[in-house]
Amino acid sequence: MTKLSAENRNILLKSIRNIPNFPEKEIIFKDITTLLNNPKAFDILMNHLESRYNSYNLDYVVGIDARGFIFGSVLADRLNVGFVPIRKNGKLPAETISEKYELEYGFDEVQIHTDAFCDKENPIVLLVDDLIATGGTAAAAELLINKAGANCIECCFVMELDSLKGRDKIKGEIYSVLNFS
Amino acid sequence: MTKLSAENRNILLKSIRNIPNFPEKEIIFKDITTLLNNPKAFDILMNHLESRYNSYNLDYVVGIDARGFIFGSVLADRLNVGFVPIRKNGKLPAETISEKYELEYGFDEVQIHTDAFCDKENPIVLLVDDLIATGGTAAAAELLINKAGANCIECCFVMELDSLKGRDKIKGEIYSVLNFS
Repeated sequence: MTKLSAENRNILLKSIRNIPNFPEKEIIFKDITTLLNNPKAFDILMNHLESRYNSYNLDYVVGIDARGFIFGSVLADRLNVGFVPIRKNGKLPAETISEKYELEYGFDEVQIHTDAFCDKENPIVLLVDDLIATGGTAAAAELLINKAGANCIECCFVMELDSLKGRDKIKGEIYSVLNFS
Repeated sequence: MTKLSAENRNILLKSIRNIPNFPEKEIIFKDITTLLNNPKAFDILMNHLESRYNSYNLDYVVGIDARGFIFGSVLADRLNVGFVPIRKNGKLPAETISEKYELEYGFDEVQIHTDAFCDKENPIVLLVDDLIATGGTAAAAELLINKAGANCIECCFVMELDSLKGRDKIKGEIYSVLNFS
């Protein structure tokens, strides 16, 4: 595994911009569209993830709708393994398994296809998303992967908001590229 | 450009499954999750797109939320150019340009960041999505790219439903890998 150099970490940090008051007042949103449209920064990030997960012998990468699709599918392509989407309720067309998670007020639900991993027995799976905040979606996604018959070997995030303690909700291993307080 | 061989076209066609009555009765949905979790099929598709667009001197690939993110970001990564997302109303955090399009009943809206292409002057952009059906979203996305100051050189789809005549709504060039009646 190639460690992310201080210089490259700095390029990544500079490529992400803060948008105040989005999606609501007093929230500072970490906007990764400025990382995505910067091929140098995006390549640094993906080289780092590729070198980390190259030795994991993954069978699949799972990405969470919608920004997790971007990082997850590129990583799957680079590692030459299958990509599997986890989506909000009602978006996947075939038979699904669902998992609810708590929001500030009420619940939301994510789904995976029941036969998402049917080509392999006990496959090794990496979960990828752009951000872990309170961790509700990621924890539900980790559960879904295991319920669908796979072994979720790690949950990987481009960014982690440490103060929200989302990582406490994750049962297995967790890796974040960039940590923010 | 490498032409897609009959054998490879067949592998792609076999990797896509039909889901009857999704999202509503009498619609047969083309499910590409079975292409995505099949690394051989996905690699055939992306090799074909990479070889087609290698000589286009693209500056950016634009993908439409959410399945267009998958094909678009992998192509951007392979061509080493920036990736730009087009999303439904309210999902992009910074200043946006919007474009409405007609649905069977009412309207929907897609958005792009105003500064999505600000790093380059008159950049060359490819639009990517998984499917063109009636073409409303794609035509709105093509307009958005041009409004944001770029030159949308082609709209590329993994699948086209010919009978819905979506291509008639596209102003510029259009390329589909797989055509269905």
